[in-house]
Amino acid sequence: METKQTQKAKKKKKAGSAKVTHDEKRLEIIACCATLFDKVGYHGMSMQMLADEVGLGKPTLYHYFASKADILFEMHQLHLGAVNDSMDAESAKASDPGELLIKACAIALREISQHPGYVRAFMEHYGDLEPEHREQIKKRREEYLARITSIITKGMESGQFRKFDPKITTLSFLGMCNWAYKWYPRLAEQTPPEQMAAQLCEVFLEGLKLPRLKK
Amino acid sequence: METKQTQKAKKKKKAGSAKVTHDEKRLEIIACCATLFDKVGYHGMSMQMLADEVGLGKPTLYHYFASKADILFEMHQLHLGAVNDSMDAESAKASDPGELLIKACAIALREISQHPGYVRAFMEHYGDLEPEHREQIKKRREEYLARITSIITKGMESGQFRKFDPKITTLSFLGMCNWAYKWYPRLAEQTPPEQMAAQLCEVFLEGLKLPRLKK
Repeated sequence: METKQTQKAKKKKKAGSAKVTHDEKRLEIIACCATLFDKVGYHGMSMQMLADEVGLGKPTLYHYFASKADILFEMHQLHLGAVNDSMDAESAKASDPGELLIKACAIALREISQHPGYVRAFMEHYGDLEPEHREQIKKRREEYLARITSIITKGMESGQFRKFDPKITTLSFLGMCNWAYKWYPRLAEQTPPEQMAAQLCEVFLEGLKLPRLKK
Repeated sequence: METKQTQKAKKKKKAGSAKVTHDEKRLEIIACCATLFDKVGYHGMSMQMLADEVGLGKPTLYHYFASKADILFEMHQLHLGAVNDSMDAESAKASDPGELLIKACAIALREISQHPGYVRAFMEHYGDLEPEHREQIKKRREEYLARITSIITKGMESGQFRKFDPKITTLSFLGMCNWAYKWYPRLAEQTPPEQMAAQLCEVFLEGLKLPRLKK
């Protein structure tokens, strides 16, 4: 899934500059960093290791990012940006709440399969963000949570879903989807996100939907 | 929830020794360590910080644990021990698969509320275990997963549950329960584990169970 930032970087490239732009280099550094996080962990990685991996001097690396926590923040932003952009696109296409929940799950699974490093950092290193960054991310996370709750509440109001506690229902649903960062990367090749999302949400959606009349 | 290790430690105390036993001291160190992990993170904590917190000299601390990874392993063992002992007890009392799944969820939530530090270490620091310890824990995790799958499969075979893919159903269920380590600690006081487990599993179990005939 392309984020607005990736699109922006691509547009700059199209505009004729053969030179790697500042934004593109930042994305390249973030991608290297995600791979290193996956190999040695957030705390095991140093800026020197990252500089070596990207092939930059350490001072040049600091020109792009002030610190490791700064890269971590950018990963959070990229992940949330990708998820939100995709949710905007899906919400414009479909309005059925059951379908939208499967789409939300598929979006999470796609991020997990394409960027396992960002997603692991997002799931496990929120506490390592700088305090002011943490506040921003907290707000964006809460907005996403509210977005899912709103789909569920609308489904209940329209009578497509049965009535349960919308907040607990949101937590059940998100747990089911988010936990997949632990096991989905190794299955992604054989079962793509859309197909896995439909399977993963099946029992839950059966419970949520009003029972169909028997013929 | 008392683990066998806690029970063992208590028995030793009862046996008449006023002196804090080796096992008791280890448990005290692990509890302090879990609190420190929660405050400063696994990687932020040093053995010196732990020694200061427990009120021991560093050489004496090393008499109880060879390394930080060794304590992490013991936390994994304690958590898995507690979960397995509780599952054994519940399986002896009830055989209804829906009830057993709610019990499994309640056991997870109780661990999360009583030992948030162990559980976070368990969820996020499996990769920091020593290789030979990791193998042991992997095996025990897989046994637990198989145990949940077996409850689900039996429910399907007996006709109490509808037929879905048992492996994916297990992953949905465990995601729903395990993810709670992110949000349940702050709600545990107002909604105890059994009550929250019933609410958290409600939609999922409705989907899993055969539809009741309408009266």
